[in-house]
Amino acid sequence: MNAEILCIGTELLLGNIVNTNAAYLSEQLARLGINVYHHTVVGDNAQRLQEALQIAVNRADLVIMTGGLGPTYDDLSKETVSKYFNRQMVLHQPSFEKLQEFYALRGVKMQPNNEKQAYQPEGAVVFTNHSGTAPGIAIEEGDKIAIMLPGPPRELKLMFESEVLPYLQKFSDHIIVSRDLRLFGIGESQVETMLRDIMTGSSNPTLAPYAKEGEVMLRITASAPTEAEGYAMMQPMMEQIQPVIEPYLYGVDVPDLQTALVNYLLEHNITVATAESCTGGLISKSITDVAGCSSVYPGGVCSYSNEMKMKWLDVKKETLDAYGAVSEQTALEMAQGIRNATGADFGLSTTGIAGPGGGSEEKPVGLVYMAVAGENYQQVKKVIIRYGEQTSREMIRQRSAKHALHLLLQAVKTKE
Amino acid sequence: MNAEILCIGTELLLGNIVNTNAAYLSEQLARLGINVYHHTVVGDNAQRLQEALQIAVNRADLVIMTGGLGPTYDDLSKETVSKYFNRQMVLHQPSFEKLQEFYALRGVKMQPNNEKQAYQPEGAVVFTNHSGTAPGIAIEEGDKIAIMLPGPPRELKLMFESEVLPYLQKFSDHIIVSRDLRLFGIGESQVETMLRDIMTGSSNPTLAPYAKEGEVMLRITASAPTEAEGYAMMQPMMEQIQPVIEPYLYGVDVPDLQTALVNYLLEHNITVATAESCTGGLISKSITDVAGCSSVYPGGVCSYSNEMKMKWLDVKKETLDAYGAVSEQTALEMAQGIRNATGADFGLSTTGIAGPGGGSEEKPVGLVYMAVAGENYQQVKKVIIRYGEQTSREMIRQRSAKHALHLLLQAVKTKE
Repeated sequence: MNAEILCIGTELLLGNIVNTNAAYLSEQLARLGINVYHHTVVGDNAQRLQEALQIAVNRADLVIMTGGLGPTYDDLSKETVSKYFNRQMVLHQPSFEKLQEFYALRGVKMQPNNEKQAYQPEGAVVFTNHSGTAPGIAIEEGDKIAIMLPGPPRELKLMFESEVLPYLQKFSDHIIVSRDLRLFGIGESQVETMLRDIMTGSSNPTLAPYAKEGEVMLRITASAPTEAEGYAMMQPMMEQIQPVIEPYLYGVDVPDLQTALVNYLLEHNITVATAESCTGGLISKSITDVAGCSSVYPGGVCSYSNEMKMKWLDVKKETLDAYGAVSEQTALEMAQGIRNATGADFGLSTTGIAGPGGGSEEKPVGLVYMAVAGENYQQVKKVIIRYGEQTSREMIRQRSAKHALHLLLQAVKTKE
Repeated sequence: MNAEILCIGTELLLGNIVNTNAAYLSEQLARLGINVYHHTVVGDNAQRLQEALQIAVNRADLVIMTGGLGPTYDDLSKETVSKYFNRQMVLHQPSFEKLQEFYALRGVKMQPNNEKQAYQPEGAVVFTNHSGTAPGIAIEEGDKIAIMLPGPPRELKLMFESEVLPYLQKFSDHIIVSRDLRLFGIGESQVETMLRDIMTGSSNPTLAPYAKEGEVMLRITASAPTEAEGYAMMQPMMEQIQPVIEPYLYGVDVPDLQTALVNYLLEHNITVATAESCTGGLISKSITDVAGCSSVYPGGVCSYSNEMKMKWLDVKKETLDAYGAVSEQTALEMAQGIRNATGADFGLSTTGIAGPGGGSEEKPVGLVYMAVAGENYQQVKKVIIRYGEQTSREMIRQRSAKHALHLLLQAVKTKE
């Protein structure tokens, strides 16, 4: 079965809102093993909606529409779709009673335009709206199915999960499962060069690379009758590729570096602290994004000025004078300093030039030093982050935070 | 002129990523006075792309495509589109040289699949990619224009603003200028109630509210032959609405609270420092997002544990024992403590419960205290951030950081 998602709403075409409904529905349908081949968005315009519906019905077995089910004059989806399928609009008594109850509960008089929401195309399956007034519907016509859902994401999700999912399950005989391998320190085309034969030579499971900001995600996807069979099908491929990507692999099925790090720290009862200059709190923010980090992260400092580097981290004035704030030596003293100040097992530091100003020939914008200090352990790394003429401050900071988190993750793993 | 946005990428159809490119391009085209009537998404599949392109070219004057310009085997957009328009792929020397330079800078060997990015359809306008390797292109064919842009949002935006916008402007005989008024501490519907008559009664310039994460942006937009005329047309409306929204207005044509704050600090030579608990470095990160902040921001601490609150900020043990870490008293001592530690004119602090765990009946998840301390000045604010069942840790942290930045901005303004 293949599907098209057809979202209706002028606010999408004006860019006022982002189409999260299409992403949500796509993910849900993938899990059901239903292939989504197209997303389409049209405005609140009957003619263009009808034309788009025509195209969608021609190329998809299942068309899921969202939006335009409200009570106002520009909500015309249901009428347009009914007309397309030659269905009369008839009063749906349970919907009418639910509307009456909805307004009675709120002590609001029901307006005539609200009644419109109780009329449904003849013969349609009606989906209850548990958090709003617009019911959803499914129309089955020959071997095609058209489903209409409300636009507000909260209403859509609740309806999809409680009503539409059980309705669709009967059309599917297999499910899709996937595993995500997260890599750092390697580019997408390099990954592809290493794994090209597997990527092009496999159909179930499949292997595909995705470039993420400064990272690569490898996704293995299998289609199988059950989840357990899907995972079993992926196992040989996992074993085949893991040795190849080992040096870059930081986690499987984790959302990001900071989660991989905090999970590892929690499992092994290791504490860390941070001393940031150019990243200015971004690393601290990233670590504390992860709920439950407080038992492994006492805190950190953003020592933006040299004074604070000396005061909080005991960086020596002579070091700053001799090598400058952006140097290997300062980075190391910062990492040791934060470790001493907090009593954490490991200290992590960054110091660099995020720009756009402040660069020189010797120390260009994008130059960042990061260091890790532990008991009988120290490591310092230099990176130059430069991706074309307009490398932004934000990017330099984001990338160097990732480099630093990765350096720390590698360091804590050496403790084993 | 009407346009269609055609995004190419299987990861969109799998729901792995949300289509922010379509929203961004829609907003940009609206400003140019170009109507967007359709968004379409197809996967990395040559046949379906060709069919979707056929439909798009039939119903739109301008088709903007995104994605599929990468170096890997599944990046097939450019070849498919060239074939559709019967153009040969030819080596584009400037693109080739830029690629060579890109890889040389990184000391990475250029792979054969990278060379493919230097081939462009014959006769195409080539747009330079300032932050990646894939150039963009425009093909003009009869009265139709097809534009292809890279998929990564950062590359797309930079290319659109620096290269595509000037290219498209020549097809428009008027320009759209706008001014953005940024409000904090008021909801969108409340703004609409106050300004409804102006919003519904104006056509050029127009006034429209946009809800942004915890903020409202009011945008005045004028269409005029020149920029100067556009700005002149907006002036009377600016003067009419400014007194109404004055208590909430924190800046005009500034991107965010932290920029408004840092600009004010730089203009008035005031220094600030931060002491964060629940926001964990997010405020420090936000302030240091703004280039040039170093002369007004010596630094800050993330005092996540009570020990670090006492050590770095001189928060009294008795205060923590009597009132707890999440309290008005602790927030005030933190703000005073960071001011003393850094010698900054103002200290800002946050302490709260970001969740999902750690809440109680008395101190629920979402409770955040923030305080500002200055010379003969102190202010403390309590907020409870709760937006229904699905309030996330991230949202609590983001919102409380904004409240804190706003509190600090108001405080520094009282110094005048």
